[in-house]
Amino acid sequence: MKTRAAVAFEAKKPLEIVELDLESPKKGEVLVEIMATGICHTDAYTLNGLDSEGLFPSVLGHEGAGIVREVGAGVTSVAPDDHVIPLYTPECRQCKSCLSGKTNLCTAIRATQGQGLMPDGTSRFSYKGQTIHHYMGCSTFSNFTVLPEIAVAKIRTDAPFKTSCYIGCGVTTGVGAVTNTANVQVGDNVVVFGLGGIGLNVLQGARMAGANRIIGVDINSDREEWGRKFGMTHFLKTKGMSRDATIAKIVELTDGGADYTFDCTGNTEVMRTALEACHRGWGTSIIIGVAEAGMEISTRPFQLVTGRNWRGTAFGGAKGRTDVPKIVDWYMNGKIEIDPMITHTLSLDEVNKGFDLMHAGESIRSVVIY
Amino acid sequence: MKTRAAVAFEAKKPLEIVELDLESPKKGEVLVEIMATGICHTDAYTLNGLDSEGLFPSVLGHEGAGIVREVGAGVTSVAPDDHVIPLYTPECRQCKSCLSGKTNLCTAIRATQGQGLMPDGTSRFSYKGQTIHHYMGCSTFSNFTVLPEIAVAKIRTDAPFKTSCYIGCGVTTGVGAVTNTANVQVGDNVVVFGLGGIGLNVLQGARMAGANRIIGVDINSDREEWGRKFGMTHFLKTKGMSRDATIAKIVELTDGGADYTFDCTGNTEVMRTALEACHRGWGTSIIIGVAEAGMEISTRPFQLVTGRNWRGTAFGGAKGRTDVPKIVDWYMNGKIEIDPMITHTLSLDEVNKGFDLMHAGESIRSVVIY
Repeated sequence: MKTRAAVAFEAKKPLEIVELDLESPKKGEVLVEIMATGICHTDAYTLNGLDSEGLFPSVLGHEGAGIVREVGAGVTSVAPDDHVIPLYTPECRQCKSCLSGKTNLCTAIRATQGQGLMPDGTSRFSYKGQTIHHYMGCSTFSNFTVLPEIAVAKIRTDAPFKTSCYIGCGVTTGVGAVTNTANVQVGDNVVVFGLGGIGLNVLQGARMAGANRIIGVDINSDREEWGRKFGMTHFLKTKGMSRDATIAKIVELTDGGADYTFDCTGNTEVMRTALEACHRGWGTSIIIGVAEAGMEISTRPFQLVTGRNWRGTAFGGAKGRTDVPKIVDWYMNGKIEIDPMITHTLSLDEVNKGFDLMHAGESIRSVVIY
Repeated sequence: MKTRAAVAFEAKKPLEIVELDLESPKKGEVLVEIMATGICHTDAYTLNGLDSEGLFPSVLGHEGAGIVREVGAGVTSVAPDDHVIPLYTPECRQCKSCLSGKTNLCTAIRATQGQGLMPDGTSRFSYKGQTIHHYMGCSTFSNFTVLPEIAVAKIRTDAPFKTSCYIGCGVTTGVGAVTNTANVQVGDNVVVFGLGGIGLNVLQGARMAGANRIIGVDINSDREEWGRKFGMTHFLKTKGMSRDATIAKIVELTDGGADYTFDCTGNTEVMRTALEACHRGWGTSIIIGVAEAGMEISTRPFQLVTGRNWRGTAFGGAKGRTDVPKIVDWYMNGKIEIDPMITHTLSLDEVNKGFDLMHAGESIRSVVIY
């Protein structure tokens, strides 16, 4: 079949809207009509050539929602007309990681996904006979895409695509970091570094979990208004502040240091501040942001010996097929908000504008509607 | 009263055995006759002038066992003739840290202890009218010492002083790191970096917890025999091996990486190796060793984002008055061994020889018997 898609033919060039050939789903695969997709910083990171493992040409996009249109042989967990969210972190429920119960980092198809291919080692996309790579196992910048069955979460049919697509990455990453990775408890003090799309979702995750003080930290004071919409109780503008001054202020606001801090900046210096702003004895800092290639985090080991914990999270620690439907429920039940975060709605033809808005800092989330 | 003691009059000089004046215990304090004390690397660290907060003159020693001889006003939890182990990490059961249930790092007397003084801001030791500082709140290199009530753990009277004194630091630090901080479960794979006194105690903690593979790592192959005595199942000599090669070998031995690694070296490069040898998704690395002043740990944040946890422990995460008596029971019941680790028994007059044996790598633990 044919599908319209935005193709990244090479790094640092705008995406091109073209008609691709798409093969039918093979055994264990499903064909999904993507109805909406968010544009995420990770797409831009790859498009800008910063990801050393980025492959071109490829169909980017990993934050979508759509409808199953066809299933390959052996598929049992979804059927045509089911509404689904593609999962860049699949959940096979069979591998050592899935069975451990301790992590969401399923390894079933990791190798081929990293090569931009389906689990059988081939691509379903081509353009004039040339192979086009899949991206993060999703490729949601295509009106139709093929996904492994283990890489789709079936969701309720009354959830709007325009907003629920954001649960495919940003919402789950932020909210899940609070509920799955940190497991924030009622009354905990939480500090969120970086109030972009992920940071706002950490804020509302902390609000949902009943955190006491929810302190937002950003160098940009424009973010205060955004933060307060999603549960932030205190704002700390750190532009020009030293690390020691930032930590001292947080220690003061939290009676000794935060129970949990979250880095949503990708800046390794901020990651250190986030760790050291934790409470002695038990404070835990969780890294969400993706750092530039080659950058390292560092601290004195004394920080850990005196009881601080340094951790990280990917996809909010969420098991996709199990947890994503729950987060859709939380959204539909009003426990979390998404609508105000969707600041721009675009057509596929306007997808490059979405990247421009992101780089200019003018959007929280741009969504492409097919 | 008078007490014989080994006094550190200044850094980098041998201790001097002298007779000190010792004041009676004040309110909330107890007088303890020290019957035995271990000589620990931390004493040497301070004596060698490496601890920027080290105070002189002082009575070093923090790993003792003895008998209560007198109690000050208001003391209710111990009485004369009780056997006790002094606690450099006290347990007041009243401060925010103690009440949190999340840490053993009681803060009740931290400030004065750091100044080498009793909680009322004065010292009980003097020499010819000159104030001599307490050390780590213990000063066990004195035949008699005065301690806050909250800094003594009451233990059973049938435990030999010569071995149970080691529970005052090394045993609890190593075994407790396994049982309190890591909470190792039956079947977990454990890697211990550095097979000195602490490392051997981590090994036997892992054995007691029912760990599967217990891998010891050291640059010195002489340590293999020691390790095997305390539960080590595999030995890895890493002298001349790169970090990548060490990690690859551990990943091979543990089917993907360790569930828990413990750094008992104090070397920040080894700390990084220990983290990166952890299993993706859940592996936890725990820093026990004390690093040189100014040294920092570092890694790529990707290591944490993919699910490894970086933590630390002090005094094995043990609440002294609660947990130390339990560890004495484990020793008396044969769950852990101490006797083979006491390689040298000295008199107080021979205390400097104990430091020499340690520096030469010839002792696991030297104990001074009064």
